[in-house]
Amino acid sequence: MLMNARRLFDGMRAGRLDAIVATMPENVTYASGFWAMSQWIRRGPQAYVLTPAPDRGEPVVIASSGLIDLAADPDVWVKDILRFGKFVIERIPAVRLDSHDERIAELMAQEDEGEAVGALVKAIKMRGLAQARIGVDEIGILPQYWDRLAEALPDATLVRAADVFRHARAVKTAEEIRRLRRSAQIADLSIQSALAIAREGASEMDLARAFHTRTITEGGLPVLGCIGVGVRSAMTNVQPSENKLKRGDVIRFDVGGRYRHYRADIARNGVVGEPDAKLARYHQAIRAGLDRAIGMIRPGVRAADVFEASVETVRREGIPHYQRSHVGHGIGLDGYDAPNIAPSSPDVFEEGMVICVETPYYEMGFAGLQVEDTLVVTADGVDSFMVSGTELRIV
Amino acid sequence: MLMNARRLFDGMRAGRLDAIVATMPENVTYASGFWAMSQWIRRGPQAYVLTPAPDRGEPVVIASSGLIDLAADPDVWVKDILRFGKFVIERIPAVRLDSHDERIAELMAQEDEGEAVGALVKAIKMRGLAQARIGVDEIGILPQYWDRLAEALPDATLVRAADVFRHARAVKTAEEIRRLRRSAQIADLSIQSALAIAREGASEMDLARAFHTRTITEGGLPVLGCIGVGVRSAMTNVQPSENKLKRGDVIRFDVGGRYRHYRADIARNGVVGEPDAKLARYHQAIRAGLDRAIGMIRPGVRAADVFEASVETVRREGIPHYQRSHVGHGIGLDGYDAPNIAPSSPDVFEEGMVICVETPYYEMGFAGLQVEDTLVVTADGVDSFMVSGTELRIV
Repeated sequence: MLMNARRLFDGMRAGRLDAIVATMPENVTYASGFWAMSQWIRRGPQAYVLTPAPDRGEPVVIASSGLIDLAADPDVWVKDILRFGKFVIERIPAVRLDSHDERIAELMAQEDEGEAVGALVKAIKMRGLAQARIGVDEIGILPQYWDRLAEALPDATLVRAADVFRHARAVKTAEEIRRLRRSAQIADLSIQSALAIAREGASEMDLARAFHTRTITEGGLPVLGCIGVGVRSAMTNVQPSENKLKRGDVIRFDVGGRYRHYRADIARNGVVGEPDAKLARYHQAIRAGLDRAIGMIRPGVRAADVFEASVETVRREGIPHYQRSHVGHGIGLDGYDAPNIAPSSPDVFEEGMVICVETPYYEMGFAGLQVEDTLVVTADGVDSFMVSGTELRIV
Repeated sequence: MLMNARRLFDGMRAGRLDAIVATMPENVTYASGFWAMSQWIRRGPQAYVLTPAPDRGEPVVIASSGLIDLAADPDVWVKDILRFGKFVIERIPAVRLDSHDERIAELMAQEDEGEAVGALVKAIKMRGLAQARIGVDEIGILPQYWDRLAEALPDATLVRAADVFRHARAVKTAEEIRRLRRSAQIADLSIQSALAIAREGASEMDLARAFHTRTITEGGLPVLGCIGVGVRSAMTNVQPSENKLKRGDVIRFDVGGRYRHYRADIARNGVVGEPDAKLARYHQAIRAGLDRAIGMIRPGVRAADVFEASVETVRREGIPHYQRSHVGHGIGLDGYDAPNIAPSSPDVFEEGMVICVETPYYEMGFAGLQVEDTLVVTADGVDSFMVSGTELRIV
């Protein structure tokens, strides 16, 4: 199971919620295992998961009929599914079906609930929650649909509850950690493939193609590919162009894909030929800041303290004017989960959090330097997911 | 310019809007050229474009400081930009910058507006619209932010306006058509690469890797990859597995990536060895239905009439029980733009619409058959984007 049920229920209790409804794609997958594809690749398509508090009944998935094969996937652990919308899948009665197709047939044989909100209202009433206090993830539901939900449930209290999911998602389950480890490693291997073809005359697009091709070969899907060389490496969100590598150019990767829906986000630098003194010193400084942060992280430590120590280390080790808004963040189904490693962050590290730690430095006309590792917080420190080291790779 | 300004302004006039605010990533890019990356790959990050009605002033982009290099991109045609949030990009004063970096420096030198809604309120007041009737795309703005916008503008009237953008986006500009043509062709070429390795013993994942690798080689990015073989091809949203091709298996591709942010969505079938009589007849029938639809499409024709004729043709040509919810849809920055080719659709084809036409047939225990072409509506018919034909490809 992907969901950290204990933590979600703790959050629901703190918010006095009798039930919670997932509406954004990350939360729908998290609360059920249902990967509602159209919702992931577009804005607007609706899918929901109703999760009652303990002893208030079993969860219910609300899925459009066009996605019923995904709702029937063996990875979906929620068994009660309501479907809505017209969709046609034929079946010749005499033909023997496999178990997945049998499940599809079973779900298609259920009544068509018409549309998404009607199906959600039915699920809520089925669970006896028409007078309950219900948290609704406000990010994925269309506002018109929220209004109609409120009208259809005049005796219920609806409260915005995306933060309850965000809180729960911060501490990962074993299955999430497995997927995130693999996702980070695919990104790391993909950087190695890009570095393997990096030489004078290769373009950013050449590096990106090598990167993404490796990601796909390893079973991942491309998402984020900020790959820039030379002065372009200083552009925060640089998108690969036909710009070609020259002697002395820095290469910056801030990259990551998805593996079984879980994100990666890591960063590394290379350089064509020997680095000059400034580059070597600055890069050593950001590595020291990263190491300082990673060395401090363990359960009970405040994220804000890690931020201060990390920035201070970068300054002392070679970039006296170093400033930064944050030096890391959680990662999971979303690229930025809690916690946030920032000066004003109230977050405290807990065992099972999966964290991206990073100390980027962008200087226009010079280069963008960035090292970013992903790791899981253990009982007494961290366990890194990385395959490669953070050294400046000379190509 | 991506935006069809005439059509957007027509829609604003029809809704008596003095201005319109884009909030979902597709509409932000559409109204400005600004590709607000974090908003595309996550849910929650905010970016806006305020577009006043003609004679009410120039548009304004609201961008987080962390995306300022993308807001400074030469592809962004909106010149007034407000930025919000702390972010650090260094600059050594003596160093000469290129024009893109100069633009970044210029934008970073502007005041930090603090947060997204405050910046949007400032833009609205700058344009003298504090008492205006303002359409707001309700899909990308967080509900809390909508509430704060309403509080900060007590004399303005805010109305939901995502449909105004949807209406405008249905008729493409020349630049959109160029990108969509290339996007469709990349998907088509990628199917050819996957078919080139299709043989007994190859897995769905092997086909997917070949498909996505070609997409990347051609400069696209993977999005949608429903690739299934044998009885699995009948699963609507089949995700590639280690399931291997056997003699007689049907291969179904329902696939497409992005090229410069524009989506592709096409479908083709293959078969390992000679098809049996049922497969050959059924596939011929869905091709006939597709051809019938494509042959009818021209400006002024009703989408509902095309639907009826297409389904009727499939029935007559070999699948007497054929039923379907729709036989196509528009495509653009979003995978499902207007129009919708469905029985109850009020849509009428117009020159410049880019359409995916499809006649899928899913039969559990047998196969999924699907042909889907992408084309642009011209003054007197259509111009297809496809490179390959729709014949059942024998491998």
